[in-house]
Amino acid sequence: MLSSAPWPALRAIYHVNAPDAAELDARVESLLLEQTVELPRKALRDPFVLEQILGRLAGTEEIAPGLHRVTIDFPIIATADDPAQFLNVLFGNSSLQTHVELADFELPADWPGRTRALPGPQFGAAGLRRSTGVHSRAITSTALKPIGLSTARLAELCGLFAQGGIDLIKDDHGLANHTFHPFADRVRACQKAVSESNRVSGRSAVYAPNLTGTPTTVLAQLRLAQDEGVGAVMIAPMLLGLPLMAEVVAQHARVPILGHPSFGGATRIAPAALYGKLFPLYGADATIFANFGGRFAYSKETCGRIARELTAPSLAGLAPTLPMPAGGIKYQQVADVLDFYGQDVILLIGGGLYEAGDDAALRVRVAEFVRHVAEFPSRA
Amino acid sequence: MLSSAPWPALRAIYHVNAPDAAELDARVESLLLEQTVELPRKALRDPFVLEQILGRLAGTEEIAPGLHRVTIDFPIIATADDPAQFLNVLFGNSSLQTHVELADFELPADWPGRTRALPGPQFGAAGLRRSTGVHSRAITSTALKPIGLSTARLAELCGLFAQGGIDLIKDDHGLANHTFHPFADRVRACQKAVSESNRVSGRSAVYAPNLTGTPTTVLAQLRLAQDEGVGAVMIAPMLLGLPLMAEVVAQHARVPILGHPSFGGATRIAPAALYGKLFPLYGADATIFANFGGRFAYSKETCGRIARELTAPSLAGLAPTLPMPAGGIKYQQVADVLDFYGQDVILLIGGGLYEAGDDAALRVRVAEFVRHVAEFPSRA
Repeated sequence: MLSSAPWPALRAIYHVNAPDAAELDARVESLLLEQTVELPRKALRDPFVLEQILGRLAGTEEIAPGLHRVTIDFPIIATADDPAQFLNVLFGNSSLQTHVELADFELPADWPGRTRALPGPQFGAAGLRRSTGVHSRAITSTALKPIGLSTARLAELCGLFAQGGIDLIKDDHGLANHTFHPFADRVRACQKAVSESNRVSGRSAVYAPNLTGTPTTVLAQLRLAQDEGVGAVMIAPMLLGLPLMAEVVAQHARVPILGHPSFGGATRIAPAALYGKLFPLYGADATIFANFGGRFAYSKETCGRIARELTAPSLAGLAPTLPMPAGGIKYQQVADVLDFYGQDVILLIGGGLYEAGDDAALRVRVAEFVRHVAEFPSRA
Repeated sequence: MLSSAPWPALRAIYHVNAPDAAELDARVESLLLEQTVELPRKALRDPFVLEQILGRLAGTEEIAPGLHRVTIDFPIIATADDPAQFLNVLFGNSSLQTHVELADFELPADWPGRTRALPGPQFGAAGLRRSTGVHSRAITSTALKPIGLSTARLAELCGLFAQGGIDLIKDDHGLANHTFHPFADRVRACQKAVSESNRVSGRSAVYAPNLTGTPTTVLAQLRLAQDEGVGAVMIAPMLLGLPLMAEVVAQHARVPILGHPSFGGATRIAPAALYGKLFPLYGADATIFANFGGRFAYSKETCGRIARELTAPSLAGLAPTLPMPAGGIKYQQVADVLDFYGQDVILLIGGGLYEAGDDAALRVRVAEFVRHVAEFPSRA
């Protein structure tokens, strides 16, 4: 069964639990069949299907007792150069099998249809640094929240953050088209607050609204936001669909995309594969993920892997993008976080700023956050 | 902290692992905050946010050692009557926490925006029975597969199945817009084969193509398929995005929608909540899920729960839809499966038919499958 594939292959690496060798064989055979032909082997009689469509086993390795690293090559033509079918081949039906985790994947060197299927980041780290004018230090970021404030209050906060020196001010991912802060009003008011602050300060703070809803709604929101002059937008592709993000990036966006992890946590895909590889492949220029030691469960090692994939992509032809660790970072921890990630990072602190107290206290804390980042030894 | 909410609530029931009472308290507090305000409680000062946006704990119950059923009410206005934001409130960031599973949810009786947010099934069981002309027995179904066959061969198989008496013939979910069977050619050829067979047989077999790709592609595919006269279409909403399915159903589809589970397996959402409630809420008229005893891991109890939710919705105002258990059902098991599900079911057998052998053997097996279903004691 073991063979090297004669065609350009999508190489998928699964972690498979199996109590014994017979069960491992059965689970490997199931993986080989499930992702493309979805038929028992004896039902396959067409030579083209057998030669050109069926996956091939490239290797298995026991990495812990009962846990196996299973590497399978799928013909890239099975993906039809389509962003939805790519996911389906990579981890469609197999995601329903609780003994399987998608650990990693590699793209073929020779895949002319790649950019049609998966646009990749259009701006990347370089574009985000150009937009914010921040070149030799980490980019500071915070979120406008919580949902339920008035539009005027959100815009006031946006201005406060921009005046305080935050580089990238994004909507909370829970800010939708609520009656108490409708999308259009909010975007106009917040972008105005940032623009006015920039005019006074000479800086280039960027406001990034959250796009959410059905595809038609999202495209209308993008148009409006771009017309208002926003410097970036945020999308949660696991809520909206990864293929929607790909279409937005390939056809409609003129600004960088921040990818948010909501609804994506536990798809049995290793975080480094999901956030480190899939998010940028589908077009994210910066990817938000749960930082170690915060409210979520990722380890330091996992966060390091995600960040490495984003800043130095192992996938050929992808521009470097920026990691955006978040979820419980305290402003006092800035130096530790920068020690770990280096300067190629967007530091997103939300609650850690807001819990300061009233606006006067918030201003002080923003200033401390900005100063901590500015004073961290530059890479230049 | 315990209170009954003064507003119409989205009630979410989570299963939370916690080693001790202190940790349970912390995890409950985190759930209360994470899904709407995403801020520490001490950072919340706006009265409207505190009264009208923050979730409220309705109860906790230890259901097994260290495992707790946690019921939380979120204000329905937090969803903004939007299909993406609804998911985000229900299980956005909390999906990233490995100690939490979304076990179930309930909608408020009083939610005027429900159909705007979530269309629900437009045809349901009644519509599928009307289309197929099958009223007093289970609906038979199979899939066109594998990917890689020629368009002509897929159409030939489609005709064979229709002539053999299969009611609902769907594309395999891996059939995308591949060069070897482009969507437009395939849909025309397969629909023609079914129509011709129906003209001869007097039956009403339905062909359901698989829609996949970015939103623009999916809408173009739907238009073409409807223009060709197909009787249903299939969508895998976890691949494409649940909000896309909602938009297709609310604005574009004139035929029933079959929901496919690909990429949806292990989102830490209980299968009965995901397939039994969310799929129909977002518009599926029939939902495919992994049958017990097949290639996937669901228990008989889980499958029963999914089927009950689909056929007798606990969500007010939703039309009954049809369960479509699949994944390794053998044609010999038809009576057992019907004993379990009753007649309100679409029996989907793919590999169990194809493994018969050549077309002559396949015809014999199709006839046996159809006969087994027809001879099962009718409910009438």
